[in-house]
Amino acid sequence: MNALAQRLGLQFPLIQAPMAGVQLHALTVAVSEAGALGSLPAAMLTPAALRDEVQAIRAKTSRPWNLNFFCHVETAADAQAEAAWRQALQPYYDEFGVDATAIPAGAARAPFSDEAAALVEECRPPVVSFHFGLPPPARLERVRRSGAFVLASATTVDEARWLQAHGADAVIAQGLEAGGHRGHFLSDDLSRQLGSFALLPQIKRAVQLPVIAAGGIADADGVAAAMALGADAVQIGTAYLLCPEATTTALHRAALQSEAAAHTALTNLFTGRPARGIVNRVMRELGPLRGAPHPPFPRSTAALAPLRAAAEARGSGDFSPLWSGQNNTGCQAIPAAELTRALCRGFSLPGLSR
Amino acid sequence: MNALAQRLGLQFPLIQAPMAGVQLHALTVAVSEAGALGSLPAAMLTPAALRDEVQAIRAKTSRPWNLNFFCHVETAADAQAEAAWRQALQPYYDEFGVDATAIPAGAARAPFSDEAAALVEECRPPVVSFHFGLPPPARLERVRRSGAFVLASATTVDEARWLQAHGADAVIAQGLEAGGHRGHFLSDDLSRQLGSFALLPQIKRAVQLPVIAAGGIADADGVAAAMALGADAVQIGTAYLLCPEATTTALHRAALQSEAAAHTALTNLFTGRPARGIVNRVMRELGPLRGAPHPPFPRSTAALAPLRAAAEARGSGDFSPLWSGQNNTGCQAIPAAELTRALCRGFSLPGLSR
Repeated sequence: MNALAQRLGLQFPLIQAPMAGVQLHALTVAVSEAGALGSLPAAMLTPAALRDEVQAIRAKTSRPWNLNFFCHVETAADAQAEAAWRQALQPYYDEFGVDATAIPAGAARAPFSDEAAALVEECRPPVVSFHFGLPPPARLERVRRSGAFVLASATTVDEARWLQAHGADAVIAQGLEAGGHRGHFLSDDLSRQLGSFALLPQIKRAVQLPVIAAGGIADADGVAAAMALGADAVQIGTAYLLCPEATTTALHRAALQSEAAAHTALTNLFTGRPARGIVNRVMRELGPLRGAPHPPFPRSTAALAPLRAAAEARGSGDFSPLWSGQNNTGCQAIPAAELTRALCRGFSLPGLSR
Repeated sequence: MNALAQRLGLQFPLIQAPMAGVQLHALTVAVSEAGALGSLPAAMLTPAALRDEVQAIRAKTSRPWNLNFFCHVETAADAQAEAAWRQALQPYYDEFGVDATAIPAGAARAPFSDEAAALVEECRPPVVSFHFGLPPPARLERVRRSGAFVLASATTVDEARWLQAHGADAVIAQGLEAGGHRGHFLSDDLSRQLGSFALLPQIKRAVQLPVIAAGGIADADGVAAAMALGADAVQIGTAYLLCPEATTTALHRAALQSEAAAHTALTNLFTGRPARGIVNRVMRELGPLRGAPHPPFPRSTAALAPLRAAAEARGSGDFSPLWSGQNNTGCQAIPAAELTRALCRGFSLPGLSR
């Protein structure tokens, strides 16, 4: 029996990666009920909506689950960067007939707040995971005192050591292949981001905590490979994007099943932080990575939002974040429980219990 | 018994990655004698030196070995790019007292030529591998007719398909973690380069040829993981750099064992093509990647050569290519045969014969 699975009360040491914007409680529940760890991403939910989702999970499963928060530091608006960004987008506003003066600025993703900490104390999720580091010590301490097992993402060996020193119970080694936001928090230098084959064993060697492999794992063979490299558990996101329990849009689903899915890139256009998605028109024409001045995370989203809406209304994902990892060959339009069971076969391939 | 190992007459399906500039026949022979496939890189050898090395291999082992060539297309000198590059280097020329007017321009690495094809016909290496695609059809046909088994590197799924269609016998899936030169030849867009966890299974699925995993594999666990992901063989380079049989400089060896080794990056400064090495001063200050105009591969080397020599004479690797993969934790200063045997334990971990 895998020690981490035992500690978390799981049948399988597999975590469904929290994916803000493409899932709510239905995916969480389905994965947890299948014996793995379902996750609920809080970053794009209002406090009221988050409470509803948590209550839905509580009502539908008594198995362990994971509540995930972004814990970035909130940034002030940067008028110059906002103006530059809107100027870059102006040709598209013209093309789509969008009135740029009517677009509000603002932050589309909320960091882990005192209010969120209070919700954790009230709802007591068995596992809480953080992306972009850890919250300030007092707020983290509230999470730990609630009884939650605390996970956090590391994209470098230094970050893994930092997380161990600052109170994480386990480290998610987020390889460069992973979809969605890079979790880096000690350095913005993307050349420091490592592929899973390099990151996982180096983190495993550097820390005493359990290490969860993430990035590029798409099927049972990938699970077996990650365990062979020393992982205590795996975290898988992209493979779940076509499941009926995900709220992935039809456009996003179509993109994942198209030839375009073969080319993902890290882009900061959609939020201000690098995140991996399928390359589309706006990434090709303005990026994929835009240098300063660019609105800091998560303030890039607002100016792009009406273009995304207008393009999607025309059936186009040209301005949508089509998050995906580099290995989207495991995406299957099957129930999440079935996918979870298929992935978990990777744990029972012989030779992994050594 | 692994089919590819059987086809190549190897005890283990492990290939020592050819590493131009840091090895000659001694490493090739040691690895081949240990039951894996030693490689000799031809790119930085004159025809006469190459002939000597091949004769040394022939004299010292009767086991299979691999002769590796770069097969880039030779580029004409670009006076404007050369001038821009020298201008960027002028502050360093001043610092080191180098007379820039005395530096010859030129190409430091030779592509696969008719003369090289004649050498293959004469020496009949059991395996020939190519980097940067494949040579023109007539020249490739000479290699095939010599009886050599032909390997070539793919960094994308498209490149793997192309290699299959153009006469490779097996494909090396070069993950982004790999040290030294990226082998891409269909697109220069580095965002298309995939980590091993994503690249290997996608190539395995796309082609009918045997697939050799490369990039990030540093120890027996890495070997087991690559095999779990579907590899028919593995190729390992960085781990051999500290072996006494390698010609790795003392500076390079020291860098690999220092904290600096944790940070590698792709840089085009040293040759004109992106290659992965440990980040040093020139990479930090001028790159790591320089946009056009920059002398095309391999013409960037000449202008940097006297700085490298001057810095190395002072005990500094600030201007040296310190090639390394992202996972250099497997480097060990032990005989190559011993390292090979340790790596090959990854093949006999249970569960990999399925």
